[in-house]
Amino acid sequence: MNKIKLNKPYLVLLGAESNPTYAKTGLGLVQWQPGLVVGQLRFRGCKVNLNVPDMSINEAVKKGIGSLIIGVAPIGGAIPESWLEVIEDAARAGLDIVYGLHIKLEDFPAITAAANKSGAKLINVRIASDNLPVGTGIKRSGKRLLTVGTDCASGKKYTALALDQAMRENGMNSTFRATGQTGIIIAGEGIPIDAVVADFISGAAELVSPDNNDDHWDIIEGQGSLFHPAYSGVSLGLLHGSQPDAFVVCHDATRNVISGWEHYSLPSIQECIDMHILLGKRTNPEICCVGISVNTSGLPTKEREQYIKNLTKETGLPCIDPLIDGCDKIIKFINKKA
Amino acid sequence: MNKIKLNKPYLVLLGAESNPTYAKTGLGLVQWQPGLVVGQLRFRGCKVNLNVPDMSINEAVKKGIGSLIIGVAPIGGAIPESWLEVIEDAARAGLDIVYGLHIKLEDFPAITAAANKSGAKLINVRIASDNLPVGTGIKRSGKRLLTVGTDCASGKKYTALALDQAMRENGMNSTFRATGQTGIIIAGEGIPIDAVVADFISGAAELVSPDNNDDHWDIIEGQGSLFHPAYSGVSLGLLHGSQPDAFVVCHDATRNVISGWEHYSLPSIQECIDMHILLGKRTNPEICCVGISVNTSGLPTKEREQYIKNLTKETGLPCIDPLIDGCDKIIKFINKKA
Repeated sequence: MNKIKLNKPYLVLLGAESNPTYAKTGLGLVQWQPGLVVGQLRFRGCKVNLNVPDMSINEAVKKGIGSLIIGVAPIGGAIPESWLEVIEDAARAGLDIVYGLHIKLEDFPAITAAANKSGAKLINVRIASDNLPVGTGIKRSGKRLLTVGTDCASGKKYTALALDQAMRENGMNSTFRATGQTGIIIAGEGIPIDAVVADFISGAAELVSPDNNDDHWDIIEGQGSLFHPAYSGVSLGLLHGSQPDAFVVCHDATRNVISGWEHYSLPSIQECIDMHILLGKRTNPEICCVGISVNTSGLPTKEREQYIKNLTKETGLPCIDPLIDGCDKIIKFINKKA
Repeated sequence: MNKIKLNKPYLVLLGAESNPTYAKTGLGLVQWQPGLVVGQLRFRGCKVNLNVPDMSINEAVKKGIGSLIIGVAPIGGAIPESWLEVIEDAARAGLDIVYGLHIKLEDFPAITAAANKSGAKLINVRIASDNLPVGTGIKRSGKRLLTVGTDCASGKKYTALALDQAMRENGMNSTFRATGQTGIIIAGEGIPIDAVVADFISGAAELVSPDNNDDHWDIIEGQGSLFHPAYSGVSLGLLHGSQPDAFVVCHDATRNVISGWEHYSLPSIQECIDMHILLGKRTNPEICCVGISVNTSGLPTKEREQYIKNLTKETGLPCIDPLIDGCDKIIKFINKKA
């Protein structure tokens, strides 16, 4: 299997976490897939609450849970001793262990032994299969939308999830397609595209959004930015392999430079649109921009509306802050074009 | 060490090869680095000749040879039994074993044991370090030229080697920088850029051509093509990380479609130039095209000269077939611009 696929439903391990910022995976999962999170496993002192029943490994087994998801990122990256016991118990009970940490659970012999005995899998969603195909460039059936960005961390995952949800609420046929670790945990499948060997980026992207019904939309989570001095290769391979019919530019309203690479200015929204059309038409000549998704949370409240209005006027495209406006404007635009 | 570095000088293993096509690595090595190939190791029936002394492992050890280079690609990819003994002997004698095959010598216990005992390294030049940095995008000192292509296998390695040689013959200060397996064997160091994890493509490219003297040229071997539906990500990461001041477009005169991806037409030379300037200026605003290197071997002999003349007129740039014309026209153009 070249795609990562998770065993549903889930028990989420939150440990003793007191800061919601470090529990983004667990919180994101319950936000977007509430039906799949059957329980949470919390230690004394945990102040994060997913508002699902607290549950032990034994109870989880009885409920037919498929995977224990590590829903928090421990500070410093090392796994606390107290987690190791729980993970070992879960692996022994046959639950897959799903995590996105920099460590490898295979380095813990007791956990590996427990998993081997029960048949449980240890799934690090940061690690890509080493058995991926090269891209074919052959056109696939169905429709595809890719979220792209002026920078990393500009709302590409959130926008894709929100667009997929809004499409389905509007009676359309759509699927969120994950290309990063948190997205994979939320979608239950995907490929961490930035962890793929360079020769296979577009081949991996092709696998992420396979042939589908003519009226079906794959909403593909973008990665990096074509303008990023470190990650542009990932973004171009993903663009070419995704063959998107449509793309949405994601942007943080307060950002003027590449975050962490401050010697690089951000492209303008229009440059970003033009570059994606120029490069994207190589594998899909029909590619077009269908909207701009802006994170306006850094702007003073009273400036947000005007910012969105100005951008709408400048680009002639539907512009939204998905957290405030939802995605309906973009979806209407897509349906009007079709 | 993040770059592969080879121990010089070399003994080249040719086995019983009778077809020069399969001995490209050995023949390329002796063509570009004649001083480093001290001997060849041939079995009965070998019809390939590098015109260096035939030599056993024992003799090679006495000559102070650093590495045994596997200079032929065995048909089917499996290593013949007769090679294994020689490789084991060489490893036992402390020679590094350098190869670019799809197999791993670590899978042969006798070879691994011999290498471990002597301290010899088993170096597969297809495999990249898993300890590479992320690209910084920070400008480096010295000058850089990248060979790029309208397609894969369009003469990028050959052109880079020929340009580097011609520069040095013209009294300039230059170094060939390898990004692929054969190039790495010829250069004695480098990173196989297409084997790097996607997030680290431009970081690896930055390592390949570090800071240097102001008058020094790194001549960087290009990979893939920005127009290739499978490999464009590699090419963009390499372009952004290389930060070239100059690039040369490499093209096969008889090719109209992407080789092996025949549903994709080749870009025109002008499109290829424009796209590299548009994208390359992100990390080096001074980027410019300094020539076109065409493989005209597929054209009827009498048409070659006219083809090159027409292209020179169309582009206003020095156009050459490096095998026929050498690279002096391009080097003159570079020096005139400077």
